Amino acid sequence: MMKTTRNPDRYFSADPATRNMARELYRNVAHLPIVSPHGHVDPRLFADPEASFGSPAELFIIPDHYVTRMLYSQGIPLEGLLKGDHRQIWKIFCENFHLFRGTPSGIWLMDELASVFGVDEKPQAANANRLYDALEEKLASPDYSPRRLFERFNIEVLCTTDAATDTLEHHQAIQQSGWTGCILPMFRPDAVVNLDTANWEGNIARLSEASGIDVVNYLSFIQALEKRRTDFKAMGATASDHAALTPFTTELTPGDADTIFQRALKGKADADDAARFTAHMLMEMARMSIEDGLVMQLHPGSLRNHNDVIFRKFGPDKGADIPLQTEYTRNLLPLLNKYGSNPRLTLILFTLDETTYARELAPLAGHYPALKLGPPWWFFDSINGMARYFDQIMETAGIYNTAGFNDDTRAFCSIPARHDLWRRAAANWLAGLVVRHIIGSDDADEMIAELAIGLAKQAYKL
Amino acid sequence: MMKTTRNPDRYFSADPATRNMARELYRNVAHLPIVSPHGHVDPRLFADPEASFGSPAELFIIPDHYVTRMLYSQGIPLEGLLKGDHRQIWKIFCENFHLFRGTPSGIWLMDELASVFGVDEKPQAANANRLYDALEEKLASPDYSPRRLFERFNIEVLCTTDAATDTLEHHQAIQQSGWTGCILPMFRPDAVVNLDTANWEGNIARLSEASGIDVVNYLSFIQALEKRRTDFKAMGATASDHAALTPFTTELTPGDADTIFQRALKGKADADDAARFTAHMLMEMARMSIEDGLVMQLHPGSLRNHNDVIFRKFGPDKGADIPLQTEYTRNLLPLLNKYGSNPRLTLILFTLDETTYARELAPLAGHYPALKLGPPWWFFDSINGMARYFDQIMETAGIYNTAGFNDDTRAFCSIPARHDLWRRAAANWLAGLVVRHIIGSDDADEMIAELAIGLAKQAYKL
Amino acid sequence: MMKTTRNPDRYFSADPATRNMARELYRNVAHLPIVSPHGHVDPRLFADPEASFGSPAELFIIPDHYVTRMLYSQGIPLEGLLKGDHRQIWKIFCENFHLFRGTPSGIWLMDELASVFGVDEKPQAANANRLYDALEEKLASPDYSPRRLFERFNIEVLCTTDAATDTLEHHQAIQQSGWTGCILPMFRPDAVVNLDTANWEGNIARLSEASGIDVVNYLSFIQALEKRRTDFKAMGATASDHAALTPFTTELTPGDADTIFQRALKGKADADDAARFTAHMLMEMARMSIEDGLVMQLHPGSLRNHNDVIFRKFGPDKGADIPLQTEYTRNLLPLLNKYGSNPRLTLILFTLDETTYARELAPLAGHYPALKLGPPWWFFDSINGMARYFDQIMETAGIYNTAGFNDDTRAFCSIPARHDLWRRAAANWLAGLVVRHIIGSDDADEMIAELAIGLAKQAYKL
Repeated sequence: MMKTTRNPDRYFSADPATRNMARELYRNVAHLPIVSPHGHVDPRLFADPEASFGSPAELFIIPDHYVTRMLYSQGIPLEGLLKGDHRQIWKIFCENFHLFRGTPSGIWLMDELASVFGVDEKPQAANANRLYDALEEKLASPDYSPRRLFERFNIEVLCTTDAATDTLEHHQAIQQSGWTGCILPMFRPDAVVNLDTANWEGNIARLSEASGIDVVNYLSFIQALEKRRTDFKAMGATASDHAALTPFTTELTPGDADTIFQRALKGKADADDAARFTAHMLMEMARMSIEDGLVMQLHPGSLRNHNDVIFRKFGPDKGADIPLQTEYTRNLLPLLNKYGSNPRLTLILFTLDETTYARELAPLAGHYPALKLGPPWWFFDSINGMARYFDQIMETAGIYNTAGFNDDTRAFCSIPARHDLWRRAAANWLAGLVVRHIIGSDDADEMIAELAIGLAKQAYKL
Repeated sequence: MMKTTRNPDRYFSADPATRNMARELYRNVAHLPIVSPHGHVDPRLFADPEASFGSPAELFIIPDHYVTRMLYSQGIPLEGLLKGDHRQIWKIFCENFHLFRGTPSGIWLMDELASVFGVDEKPQAANANRLYDALEEKLASPDYSPRRLFERFNIEVLCTTDAATDTLEHHQAIQQSGWTGCILPMFRPDAVVNLDTANWEGNIARLSEASGIDVVNYLSFIQALEKRRTDFKAMGATASDHAALTPFTTELTPGDADTIFQRALKGKADADDAARFTAHMLMEMARMSIEDGLVMQLHPGSLRNHNDVIFRKFGPDKGADIPLQTEYTRNLLPLLNKYGSNPRLTLILFTLDETTYARELAPLAGHYPALKLGPPWWFFDSINGMARYFDQIMETAGIYNTAGFNDDTRAFCSIPARHDLWRRAAANWLAGLVVRHIIGSDDADEMIAELAIGLAKQAYKL
Repeated sequence: MMKTTRNPDRYFSADPATRNMARELYRNVAHLPIVSPHGHVDPRLFADPEASFGSPAELFIIPDHYVTRMLYSQGIPLEGLLKGDHRQIWKIFCENFHLFRGTPSGIWLMDELASVFGVDEKPQAANANRLYDALEEKLASPDYSPRRLFERFNIEVLCTTDAATDTLEHHQAIQQSGWTGCILPMFRPDAVVNLDTANWEGNIARLSEASGIDVVNYLSFIQALEKRRTDFKAMGATASDHAALTPFTTELTPGDADTIFQRALKGKADADDAARFTAHMLMEMARMSIEDGLVMQLHPGSLRNHNDVIFRKFGPDKGADIPLQTEYTRNLLPLLNKYGSNPRLTLILFTLDETTYARELAPLAGHYPALKLGPPWWFFDSINGMARYFDQIMETAGIYNTAGFNDDTRAFCSIPARHDLWRRAAANWLAGLVVRHIIGSDDADEMIAELAIGLAKQAYKL
């Protein structure tokens, strides 16, 4: 029987000296609680004490676009993966598990199966049914409810991502339930800020409703956003999050902003309007952050829904979001000149263009007090992605201008595996510095604790 | 005497655990036959059973722009390298062999000299004459004829690259000769598709002749190309190849395409016409591939003939083709939206811009069923180039969305060295995954066989 | 007490075989003299035999924008670092020395403290005062005068960087003093060539004065530059240096150049004028280099003074210069087509965009006889920066198309640490090639000597 390979030294360098040092550093932080300041877990899972993760297919495959896109890329129709019989979906996945060899999904899935569900076998055609039965049984038991796993995972705090129009009712339910798990909302206003969002007008209507402010022009739009930020803060939010095609920033006059906004209300805003309005709103969001203290995050550079056929058939988040070359030095100049030296601002930047690590992001973060760099994101949340991040950012920015780790995941059960991978990668990087006499082991002891949770807690004010 | 350094563990990691595992994996595939699905060897060499490689200068230096450009870069005039006395050319090469230290050319040349010609000395001024004599003698012997070496190299299949206007007479001669070596043509229509090709009108005339279709407009142009693809398929071709300055794709109406084509026939097409026509023809080529089953390859991003003086004096392919920044995400959107999910299409992408590996190519190939990624190309067909390829592509795309190895060479005698280097680099990469417990050794055993020849045979339908 | 970690094997690979070989190669060159062909040390330090480096804050912190920008990035006001009490500045630095963990500044500072000043403790709050006293005492002693340290550092030649309008009086004083240290000027005309320089008209007036040629139009401007190049050569200069926002080159007619120049004299040149004039002047500078033999250097790609508030308050060089994406293949085409094959030209290129290493710079340098690649620059003058440089450039360019090492520093006392780091990194890179049997150890012995000083001396004609 094929066993999964969860060696205690996994992911560390093959070099014995480095590995020994990495193991020691990792041991310092392996059992620290998990701080998850940015992710996409559905708060509903925790609002209802009886909630369950559903079938193995619902837990591991259907919602995980990392998994379905890889299967799709090899010619497996998406219909069968998203809408088929769950046991059959699981079988397809097991038959094709070799596709995930050497990928982060492969690592997370094997780790999750083993450490969360006690399944030590590699999925394959031969054991598909047996594994399905075993997982199904566990998922039906109260020990595998979201709340129980949250406790077992030792999560200190988990932040979700919530639309500016969200009622936050599930967060409210969690907080009023008496359950002690700390789950906080995060303010993500993209769907009202980016004018080219599908059904933007509908979102504006929902914003009016949620804020109690009738959004009829730019001024009331700003007021409504400020109101919702206050609501989010009241529910414990410490951060906002912003996606944009590019990190372009520019400041419009209120009059110009209103002109664009009015065009958008009439359904007449064009692509240039949308780009300029987003660019302006990023500056507004920085201003609001300075006023209300919410940490601001910016995630640019993904061309969403590249495959139009898939988008029309199955909607967004189906693994067809493709990164773009991204430019930060000039694009962020207006925002950073106005707010980058303000001690009240924390702006955490992410990228899908690793060429910007050493060239733009580290020099910017190594200068501007307001800037911190988020962890390697999405495709780069991986062993090699982390190694490149450490190698290309830290020499110029130092670790103290970074924001620790985010798991950024919808897949709740993969959270321990993802944080564990980061802690191992960080320990391995630091071990390499120690054995090459670049830092002392006393330095490394402090740095591993910062990288594991300290920097994240500080950057996100948690 | 300076010996060349052909250690049996060459190119493997210095780390003993990784090296041992790499050696074991390599051993599995070292003696597999060579599958060479893309290259530039002249079929004439095999059409005539008496053909020879000529002098050592003709074999190793004159046609190899990797070699001549390096000598030229150090101030050695190209005249003396391309048109001089052959023994003198060889002498210059030997005197300057230190220039190739640490380069792939250095590796291939030393390996080729040793394993093909039994020459174990590093070329240098002192042994230049002696080596020339030894090589000249061997090259004159029947054991060193192209056909004998093809057999000795254990080549299962070798694909050449042939213009759309090629008569394929040498391929015909090979197939009719009774010799059993498998050499297949590949359809490369750049010289008629790219309107800015030197003497494009002449090429169109030759296309009319070769196809028997009088090419007078866009429609007859398409018919002639389809006819030639059929001819190529009849001779065993399984693939087409396309070079373009950028991977820009767009679909023109037949009317617009014809308007541009007519301008070109009158010698009045401009750079924009050429760019749009190529962009359109890439989509047409994908359509034809879906219809006739030829695998489509795209090699964009080289600015050819950068050094105008050299181009005017010595023609193309003299080592002055320089890569450009390349963008795939937006440029390929039209083609991939129309054809990228079609199960009948295989589109193999190459790049000279390694920044696109992790940012664009792996995410695209990890989504679209039609896409596969070609191996590291040209400047990146090297130890470090392969390491970066494995590290930056495989986590997101997985190996099964890649197309194995191409040697892409004109230098027939370097083929075994190049495939050997790839197999060693692949074994070394997999060994690193095994010793870090990222994959199991059972996984690695299957993966090395795929990387050595399996993926190439499948991707190219060989 | 925290000791700094100056292990004799520092910065070498953790792998024992590689480390042993690196140690051996390093030993060959550790004690070679220092050749520093490009830097920013103030010649005044050596003109006056009594000159001193001032206080510890003046030596280590105030002029070092690598250090002050890192402190500023963590919210420490620049006022207190540049204008405060020196002992207090030193204290802030010591309290925050952890910020430099794993950074090149951290490495240089610890090495400099230990090897130049005998201070083996890591700076921290607790020892700040004691270290200040110890350093202050040493800096006041004659043994720590610039001239004595120059001798102790075993510097064979040190090139400074001097404006085209510089009187070179300090260089004159050094040469007439009878002191034997070899300090040469370098011609840097940016402030008169780049029309958008602050106070450009004033600089032109100073150019008239320094050259004795009344600069009233483009022709007299060129004459004045040629005159100053002659003056610099007379003082021993072997090179010129040029900064530009991009490496764009283009040739204007003398008439067009004069039109722009006249607009500039009237204060009416715009950004496009400045860009085109610089592009043209780069070609002029290549022409002059061919005539007078000065080696030409080009340092493009830094967007200077990104933080406008800091620039207005504290001036340039405060750690707010941020790199930009840079394109060489097309931008240099006019210059390289005209002069790139001229055997009298040496053009040394630098970059802040590492993506150009393998994609553009190595292929260009591996073709054009005039081109050589400068060492990893600025943010990339670091352990990882050097490793990436070796890995991404050498396979295509070979070491003989590179120009060895520059320290490029204002911080005189860090020069030995910087050259030592380069020699260690080069030894380590070569060791990796030897133990993987890519080159022989005989090759490596020759290559390490070239990399340590041979290539720099040859490229800069020293």
